[in-house]
Amino acid sequence: MVTTDRKLRDVEATPALIVDAAKVARNVERLAAYAMSHGIGVRPHTKTHKSLGMARRQIQAGAVGLTTAKVGEAEVMAEASSDLLIAYPTVDEYRCRRLAKLARGGVTVRVAADSTEGVEALAGAARAAGTRIGVLVDLDVGFHRTGAPSPSAALELAQHVTRHPSLRLDGLFLYPGHVWAPSDQQAGELERIDAPLSESVDLWNRSGLEAGVVSGGSTPTAYQSHLLTRQTEIRPGTYIYNDMNTVRAGFCSLDDCAATIVCTIVSTAAPGKVVIDGGTKTLTSDRNVTAPDSGHGLVVEYPDATITRLSEEHGEIDVARCERRPRIGERVTVIPNHICPCVNLQDAFWLRREDGGLEPMRVDTRGRLS
Amino acid sequence: MVTTDRKLRDVEATPALIVDAAKVARNVERLAAYAMSHGIGVRPHTKTHKSLGMARRQIQAGAVGLTTAKVGEAEVMAEASSDLLIAYPTVDEYRCRRLAKLARGGVTVRVAADSTEGVEALAGAARAAGTRIGVLVDLDVGFHRTGAPSPSAALELAQHVTRHPSLRLDGLFLYPGHVWAPSDQQAGELERIDAPLSESVDLWNRSGLEAGVVSGGSTPTAYQSHLLTRQTEIRPGTYIYNDMNTVRAGFCSLDDCAATIVCTIVSTAAPGKVVIDGGTKTLTSDRNVTAPDSGHGLVVEYPDATITRLSEEHGEIDVARCERRPRIGERVTVIPNHICPCVNLQDAFWLRREDGGLEPMRVDTRGRLS
Repeated sequence: MVTTDRKLRDVEATPALIVDAAKVARNVERLAAYAMSHGIGVRPHTKTHKSLGMARRQIQAGAVGLTTAKVGEAEVMAEASSDLLIAYPTVDEYRCRRLAKLARGGVTVRVAADSTEGVEALAGAARAAGTRIGVLVDLDVGFHRTGAPSPSAALELAQHVTRHPSLRLDGLFLYPGHVWAPSDQQAGELERIDAPLSESVDLWNRSGLEAGVVSGGSTPTAYQSHLLTRQTEIRPGTYIYNDMNTVRAGFCSLDDCAATIVCTIVSTAAPGKVVIDGGTKTLTSDRNVTAPDSGHGLVVEYPDATITRLSEEHGEIDVARCERRPRIGERVTVIPNHICPCVNLQDAFWLRREDGGLEPMRVDTRGRLS
Repeated sequence: MVTTDRKLRDVEATPALIVDAAKVARNVERLAAYAMSHGIGVRPHTKTHKSLGMARRQIQAGAVGLTTAKVGEAEVMAEASSDLLIAYPTVDEYRCRRLAKLARGGVTVRVAADSTEGVEALAGAARAAGTRIGVLVDLDVGFHRTGAPSPSAALELAQHVTRHPSLRLDGLFLYPGHVWAPSDQQAGELERIDAPLSESVDLWNRSGLEAGVVSGGSTPTAYQSHLLTRQTEIRPGTYIYNDMNTVRAGFCSLDDCAATIVCTIVSTAAPGKVVIDGGTKTLTSDRNVTAPDSGHGLVVEYPDATITRLSEEHGEIDVARCERRPRIGERVTVIPNHICPCVNLQDAFWLRREDGGLEPMRVDTRGRLS
């Protein structure tokens, strides 16, 4: 414990995001090895780390390219890879124009689309810029957020894409966001996804179209990706850092959590609780996906504590069940429920190198909301 | 509706935060007039707007100074006022040293404290810098987050403060964060706060100490501040913008919401719903305080719609009960549940001037977490 606290003292100001380089390397390499053994490409979603440095680590480990949600993120990530997928419907003139500019600049740009309006907007922008943009037709496989509702609807949209010389029909897109079962219990759910996905690919083939890319995946389903037999690449994001969502759902161990937030105990005045200097503006209000009543993250040094209530800048921790009560000024390590939006609240983070030293790094695409 | 949509088209990129200058002026002036009529000072909490421009508007309307949570925010807000209250326990060397530097630079600095450790840290930093820092003793009046648990504990801490020549005992601090009842039903709860508060002030007087400043208040209790008879100033934050928390709790009308987020409809593929380009990285996961099941904010143009589920960058809206279904690419105006953390996710915002023009402004203290 003393060693831990001394390490935490390295950081001058809290709350501070610390990323462990060795754990990042292990998380990235483990998934790369799994995917390679099944002939599946990894196209990490950069929404989690929003960092060029982390993106480059993923590319070095064999990633086929990168994923972003927003176009502004893609503009930055183009420094780390010239093969980008925007896993998001870009339907407005502003975003499409900027994407076309990226494509014209030599980046392979692909976009997930689920509407004819979106396809028209992309086609118009690419045509105006004298370039081509690749389209993946988004097929809803059960999350019911975006995506054509059936293989026949997806085929219809694909045929619409082929009418535009400024677009390239690159394949299919899916997001199994509803699958959070333990890995060894995902087979049934993934079969229910594989059926319409295979049907889609076959339907395209019979119609003279090719789904060269079939892009899917998420961190929860990452290590079961081989069960989606037509999938060519996956887009996990959280796996690089992990968090209490992936721990409590059984997708990794606590020791695989590479990103933690060091906080300072600022008050112990209220009976049975202590307060840290991180609230919703540090940890967010995201509840744990599979354990919504488990509090707002784990306090590593006090596993019997519960982060019970957050204000914007205060985190209240119930320490009634802890053998030892944290002291004022003491530092603690928090693993949040959901690391992605927490990273997005920081301008910078500290990389803990394998030699123990701390290196400052930027959250390069923070605030890129468009 | 057409007029609204044309106005929304003024903004090139979404999601965009728009602040209505006329509504800001009305909200700020209304509270200033109430407070002045009761002889109470207003020291707005800048956590809501995080903007020097907004802080200056509050100062021009008669605010006695400004409030921040973090020291990094105070360093920025010192450009707008030389009278700052840090409504937060600063117990670590880093924060205390920076506060002392601010005080030494000529800013009147006050800090809420609830521990002898915190008092010692402030005293040491002020002494080392050759300056004085003012302390308000934090008294817990029922929120049970920070604060001395009783008037006698508060007195003891006050006496501790007086032992340090580098500190100035300025008074008492309270935060009635638990009071969310409708204004006309707050009398009972505020009486239960007024009793220990008055007891504290009297106890100090009998012990030869003076509570020159008694700083309290919040947006929910703002217009009942006169019921806390010993209070000299209040620190509301949200009142400048308002949000669905203050609307649904009955503290203001929809028309008083000065800050809104313009989003674009990016998908209509899933039956009965549409998707906007704002998720938790724009609207946060904060639920409505008094109506937790009301969804993630109000879609102004579609009052019968419900924002049912947020991913990081997607907001899913149930439009089954809407007469008209929003179109792809259409823009809509969202009033979030809690505006403060949403502002904190933006680097900049648009001020809609009274002449209708849009002026870009910075969120100056965004990311100031320490």
